Amino acid sequence: MIKIGILGYGNLGRGVECAIKQNDDMELVAVFTRRDPGKVQILTGTAAVANAADIADWKDKIDVLILCGGSATDLPGQTPEMAKMFHVVDSFDTHARIPEHFADVDAAAKAAGKVGIISVGWDPGMFSLNRMYANAILPNGKDYTFWGKGVSQGHSDAIRRIQGVKDGKQYTIPVDAALAAVRAGENPELTTRQKHTRECFVVLEDGADAAKVEQEIKTMPNYFSDYDTTVHFISEEELKANHSGIPHGGFVIRSGKTGWEEENTHIIEYSLKLDSNPEFTSCVIVAFARAAYRLAAEGQSGCKTVFDIAPAYLSAQSGEELRAHLL
Amino acid sequence: MIKIGILGYGNLGRGVECAIKQNDDMELVAVFTRRDPGKVQILTGTAAVANAADIADWKDKIDVLILCGGSATDLPGQTPEMAKMFHVVDSFDTHARIPEHFADVDAAAKAAGKVGIISVGWDPGMFSLNRMYANAILPNGKDYTFWGKGVSQGHSDAIRRIQGVKDGKQYTIPVDAALAAVRAGENPELTTRQKHTRECFVVLEDGADAAKVEQEIKTMPNYFSDYDTTVHFISEEELKANHSGIPHGGFVIRSGKTGWEEENTHIIEYSLKLDSNPEFTSCVIVAFARAAYRLAAEGQSGCKTVFDIAPAYLSAQSGEELRAHLL
Repeated sequence: MIKIGILGYGNLGRGVECAIKQNDDMELVAVFTRRDPGKVQILTGTAAVANAADIADWKDKIDVLILCGGSATDLPGQTPEMAKMFHVVDSFDTHARIPEHFADVDAAAKAAGKVGIISVGWDPGMFSLNRMYANAILPNGKDYTFWGKGVSQGHSDAIRRIQGVKDGKQYTIPVDAALAAVRAGENPELTTRQKHTRECFVVLEDGADAAKVEQEIKTMPNYFSDYDTTVHFISEEELKANHSGIPHGGFVIRSGKTGWEEENTHIIEYSLKLDSNPEFTSCVIVAFARAAYRLAAEGQSGCKTVFDIAPAYLSAQSGEELRAHLL
Repeated sequence: MIKIGILGYGNLGRGVECAIKQNDDMELVAVFTRRDPGKVQILTGTAAVANAADIADWKDKIDVLILCGGSATDLPGQTPEMAKMFHVVDSFDTHARIPEHFADVDAAAKAAGKVGIISVGWDPGMFSLNRMYANAILPNGKDYTFWGKGVSQGHSDAIRRIQGVKDGKQYTIPVDAALAAVRAGENPELTTRQKHTRECFVVLEDGADAAKVEQEIKTMPNYFSDYDTTVHFISEEELKANHSGIPHGGFVIRSGKTGWEEENTHIIEYSLKLDSNPEFTSCVIVAFARAAYRLAAEGQSGCKTVFDIAPAYLSAQSGEELRAHLL
């Protein structure tokens, strides 16, 4: 059994807990929290809830520690720090800062003889893998990534910060015509506006000015002004009933040419349709936790990404089983 | 530069030659043929055409030998034989015999200190990888593979063997309703007939009996009798004009449940739409030839499949570049 610890118990931590339940070769040993452990209810009866401050006491009781904090403030310090004591997996998703995070985790993990796998999930993660495989296969081509339909936490937060807004949810939606053009091998040049639309469901405070809120959303720089945005005003009950999920997904497409005269076109497409963004991310993380355990057992150390890990390490099946049933 | 040799110069060999042209870190050194080398015209001006019988003379001039023969009679003997002298990549695609082929190539390659990568292409190959990743991520789920729309060489051959048929092409077509049900997360149990239809374009010999030919096709066991099959009789000119390509493709879909009570559904889909089946297969093979070269440079040996190779080995880009641009 691979003994797993979880640091941070929000949506992602709970998702990891659920994913571990589905993997027979793993067990959840402990959840570490910065809150009062006595007040954190987890789902796994056999696992402990412990104070994050005491995590060093668990060094020899955990094989892989899964970091479920946020990329903005938690992971940049936490992942290298924890890699001094544990094999770790995180879902660091600030694309621009990955090289820096990689260097920090690599130094800490190498010094401690630990394995650290960073930026695991679906983007970065499975989408990255598919971009990479498709680029290696079709060097002469063009990449497209579309996100959605799904809830953007950042955009939902931005709406909720507007005066007069009581609550709100934002969906990112890929534009069908753009997807169709890419799939047809037309290699279109697409603007931000042509790729995605944004749809907002907003609950107003009593007496708020709907027209003013709508105008403020639609003109918000970076978040909405470059997009065709639709705003729906709904009741709190309707928001709760129809928009409390965290679905997401998207499409990674590469269109490429082959042949001596580049006469043939090929389309590689990978897509996800997810009822729960954090639960799916958790499933990917847990598979890579298995890989971290195996790499460590081989004596490897240092920072790895999804690019560096042979697929078979993710599977509970043996090489023989994989070749017989999935190849 | 990675020096590549090609053994066998049919559609696949020519596809590999075209793919090498698109990869700046590779060069084609020689094509080996069982035909009279003087009569084989290749596209690459700088490469030799040599007799397959003399291939041992090239042991030190080639980094990776790509085997472009067929799975029925060529590769079972050829891949282990060649792995005694070269790092090799093949596209062995008889799924049921992969374990046996793996063992043969592994023994030969290990004894000679060579790397052999088998069953590379899209199915087996990229489809296998996607089945494996999706299974590791969603252990609680169901797999579906659909093929097409594309030309099945085996079924086209079967049509051409019928008395009264001058020429013919067969397309395998996935059933839209089945695809839609799978994508909707319905986890349907699908019969052979419900998954694919078969469409045949047939040129008759002068005086042949169309009704009899159609009946013979539709009732042919294994090939057509379990499918809804459509037969179109067309002229030789029309067959040449509209059906001389070798397109193919398909879909690998896994539908799985997550959550403590399995309350959430996720759909992972990988699809290919290929103008040229052999050229795309060749592109995959060439990327794995790069991996063979790098694994060999690390001192590895033995038989590998797509499951055993870290994705980064396939790419001409460095780890830094991949992390900065594709993660």
